[in-house]
Amino acid sequence: MAFPSDLEIARGASLKPLDDIASEMGLPAHHLEPYGRNVMKIGLDAIEELADRPKAKYVVVSAITPTPLGEGKTTTTVGLSQGFKHIGKRATVAIRQPSMGPTFGIKGGAAGGGYSQVVPMELLNLHLTGDMHAVTAAHNLLAAVIDNHLYQGNELNLDQHNITWRRVLDVNDRALRNIVVGLGGGMDGVPRQTGFDITAASEVMAVLALTTSLEDMRERLGRIVVGYNKDGEPVTAEQLETAGSMAVLLREAIKPNLLQTLENTPVLVHAGPFGNIATGNSSVVADLIGIRSGDFLITEAGFGADMGAERFFNIKCRTSGLSPDAAVVVATVRALKAHSGKYRIVAGKPLPPELLRENPADVAAGAANLRKQIENIRLHGVSPVVAINAFPDDFASEHDAIRQIAEEMGARAAVCTNFAQGGKGAAELAEAVAEAAVEPSKFQVLYPDGASLKQKIETVARKVYGADGVHYSPQSQRQLETYERAGFGTLPVCIAKTHLSISSDPTLKGAPTGWTLPVREVRASVGAGFVYPICGDMRTMPGLGSAPAATRIDLDEHGDIVGLS
Amino acid sequence: MAFPSDLEIARGASLKPLDDIASEMGLPAHHLEPYGRNVMKIGLDAIEELADRPKAKYVVVSAITPTPLGEGKTTTTVGLSQGFKHIGKRATVAIRQPSMGPTFGIKGGAAGGGYSQVVPMELLNLHLTGDMHAVTAAHNLLAAVIDNHLYQGNELNLDQHNITWRRVLDVNDRALRNIVVGLGGGMDGVPRQTGFDITAASEVMAVLALTTSLEDMRERLGRIVVGYNKDGEPVTAEQLETAGSMAVLLREAIKPNLLQTLENTPVLVHAGPFGNIATGNSSVVADLIGIRSGDFLITEAGFGADMGAERFFNIKCRTSGLSPDAAVVVATVRALKAHSGKYRIVAGKPLPPELLRENPADVAAGAANLRKQIENIRLHGVSPVVAINAFPDDFASEHDAIRQIAEEMGARAAVCTNFAQGGKGAAELAEAVAEAAVEPSKFQVLYPDGASLKQKIETVARKVYGADGVHYSPQSQRQLETYERAGFGTLPVCIAKTHLSISSDPTLKGAPTGWTLPVREVRASVGAGFVYPICGDMRTMPGLGSAPAATRIDLDEHGDIVGLS
Repeated sequence: MAFPSDLEIARGASLKPLDDIASEMGLPAHHLEPYGRNVMKIGLDAIEELADRPKAKYVVVSAITPTPLGEGKTTTTVGLSQGFKHIGKRATVAIRQPSMGPTFGIKGGAAGGGYSQVVPMELLNLHLTGDMHAVTAAHNLLAAVIDNHLYQGNELNLDQHNITWRRVLDVNDRALRNIVVGLGGGMDGVPRQTGFDITAASEVMAVLALTTSLEDMRERLGRIVVGYNKDGEPVTAEQLETAGSMAVLLREAIKPNLLQTLENTPVLVHAGPFGNIATGNSSVVADLIGIRSGDFLITEAGFGADMGAERFFNIKCRTSGLSPDAAVVVATVRALKAHSGKYRIVAGKPLPPELLRENPADVAAGAANLRKQIENIRLHGVSPVVAINAFPDDFASEHDAIRQIAEEMGARAAVCTNFAQGGKGAAELAEAVAEAAVEPSKFQVLYPDGASLKQKIETVARKVYGADGVHYSPQSQRQLETYERAGFGTLPVCIAKTHLSISSDPTLKGAPTGWTLPVREVRASVGAGFVYPICGDMRTMPGLGSAPAATRIDLDEHGDIVGLS
Repeated sequence: MAFPSDLEIARGASLKPLDDIASEMGLPAHHLEPYGRNVMKIGLDAIEELADRPKAKYVVVSAITPTPLGEGKTTTTVGLSQGFKHIGKRATVAIRQPSMGPTFGIKGGAAGGGYSQVVPMELLNLHLTGDMHAVTAAHNLLAAVIDNHLYQGNELNLDQHNITWRRVLDVNDRALRNIVVGLGGGMDGVPRQTGFDITAASEVMAVLALTTSLEDMRERLGRIVVGYNKDGEPVTAEQLETAGSMAVLLREAIKPNLLQTLENTPVLVHAGPFGNIATGNSSVVADLIGIRSGDFLITEAGFGADMGAERFFNIKCRTSGLSPDAAVVVATVRALKAHSGKYRIVAGKPLPPELLRENPADVAAGAANLRKQIENIRLHGVSPVVAINAFPDDFASEHDAIRQIAEEMGARAAVCTNFAQGGKGAAELAEAVAEAAVEPSKFQVLYPDGASLKQKIETVARKVYGADGVHYSPQSQRQLETYERAGFGTLPVCIAKTHLSISSDPTLKGAPTGWTLPVREVRASVGAGFVYPICGDMRTMPGLGSAPAATRIDLDEHGDIVGLS
């Protein structure tokens, strides 16, 4: 019999009442609001009420630089929490909400995989409790107010050619990337060029991920800069008197969602910001609840350790005040072989057959990437643990090769078979993480708030990316000066670059040296609370392929979903 | 002390657990799914399970031709159900979900008013359970697939200049009415002109309102015509292989939402199609549940009796197979005075002071409209009851004038003070409706399925609108021929005209005669199941005003919503 699909496994799950799961987390019932079957929201009052409960050990799951296929980071995150259950510890998972656009695009659903999944997977991958839609609504209300402001006389003197606020939809729709609005007659608005991004790329989503309370969210929304007036000064959502309505639209969305793994351990799903132009980390508020709800809180950071983990340390932890105790670096045989530079992996195409042959030497040849990513964790004073995510076609000699690299770096390592076996396949990893997490924490952010934006960029570029330096385009120079003048210089930086290389060139594998980070332009997510230099082409609205998942997903004769994954 | 705001009254409500309300409706608990606090969804299995329970009397609430301010139809609908409680009868209300765009536009929230409201009003007016967002997502997925189809080679030979499927968002945003998509480079899609409508105007919303089951919805979605190929043949969502994914996106949205009135009587809130280009009636599935859940099921039809009630009878009841027992016609002193032709009422401006003086003669001068709308109910074999919705500034002599018109027509009438007094202010109306509903039902649709589209249009134009005839533009002639050839001729018609006159000219008050209905073009909502001739300018995307409600709605220091209404 073939290995069942993710959807088949998920549908066969035996779910535990969420009330019981919440009770095991120590969450009093009055904080819980059921949303349909097997999903609940948790009120933010829980943060204060749980404040004197013992703190869980805080674990971030990161990875080596992934191939375009991904290396099973969510699967490892979910499996690790199941693994903790096998060794008698209570662990909570905190992850991002998947974006619906890609679900109907190339990939179908996503919430871990095999026997390490979050359930109910259909709800998780579709609307869940509507948080994404609330972000869309709040974002587009602000856009409508901006265009209405132009139409009604433009009292704030907005420079029509310097409006940075676009619109968003949670759909893969390339035709919306570049559009002209306001056509028709004189009653139909002011014509201008703009476009749509996918909702995950919205600054409102980044606000939701980084906010610490309803009041704080209201303030952050007010600080959002939508563009500049004709004197070059920033114009905010507060000046447009729209931040209040946006906060009202997000009043339910700010509450984290409680789901469970296939083995009935708790999962907090909340916010889903992009991993390149934003933090790629789930919400601060979910972590503030999860940190008081068990022995371990395990959260996932998007892409490789140079990307999501760096932002986790320097942006998310800076905001939350929480201090991580250990970091998992997920590695796979296929990705390390790819880092040898000998193979090219393309999404949607079969793997090169040579890559599937037993070849520990190729794994060793890709070691530089794993070494650098371990180093990137250590830079922040945190203990790394290498999770070797085992695939059915791997050879033991290849796993040994990864383990050897980790051990040479002084890092713990464990082979994980939780995709096929569930939690017991991650028990060894759980033991290793538990050991790492009791080492004395020396967590530190990489740069102080007071450093200049350029100092911050150069610190990350040199220390994390291994660049020789940074090159600024004239435009980015001007923008950095503008931001420093406007008082945004105290914000951390979120460097938007490719996730397929530690460098800014996606074709460079391993741990590239002898290169310079090119900053093309710099944007400011002032509401969310970071400045993001753009280094390369960042796509913020995906397209559909020639055979999108949308054409396969359907209802069967029982009204059940088919084709979701 | 000033009369409290709707939001203040709503927030002071004493809500009853929905489990208890459902139990009083006879709904078994296993059909209920809580969505946050004080809102539940009802699974569609309830329809079959309740099928042998006694049928409630079915009452539709309509109105005379309203002023631009509306005449309190929802308030009367809600009050009537509260009134039934006062006379010892169990009544369920079924209404549309309010659209969020206008909430942040001119009007703030809406769900009845005063002491006749649906609660929790904040949830009702914001995302509720996300049904509107699901409609948006399903609609825009199809739009993305269409543009992707053009981009990937246009296998179906779609005529780019004859794509009728636009995009939707639940926001008032005039700048999106007419746009050009697909700009940028060759990777960014195919440039073409299109636009956005508000979500309530989506055909998907009309499908949700008219469908009878999940399976039926899947089929209707497949029948949606998105445009025509270069041979002039219709191209459907089924041919684009997207109807399955759309149905998956709507799998939760198809379940009606259960809320309550301020006096704890049950309210089903479900679907919100436009009242001009679509049916303006809440969902069939909600009514199929509500009809087995008490002594009376009261549903509201949009705008005047020539509009929403006509579609209720000839489209909604034709689809559901349910047969109405009585129809309420809401009348107000101010609207009848306006129908005298002496006053002009403009939304957002104060009423003319002369209109507020005691003047029963002006009420009598506007009687023609009420008489014609009573006749429009009787045309369908249903007993009319006139509800005189009392305002604080009205005079008893003016109410008497309305009562006299009703009685001359042989219709029951009752003065309703439920806005200020709640259910007891509608007890007299409840008694009158109860009496009317036990008269033997002679319900009939106005035309058979087999009549031609032109016969259907002319039947409604002459009998309901009082037109002398219909004039077809050459374009509409061609379109009608196309639709008859394509097999759409068996569908009922939904004539899109102004709601501010029984005629197609919004400035003509009373019951205009001696005019011809001008059909400019004809469109087909084949999935929803009607053809809609367009007679006049139909706005399908509202704009924001110079001081939108969005600038006043906010959170207060306790995190509570202010400014919603």
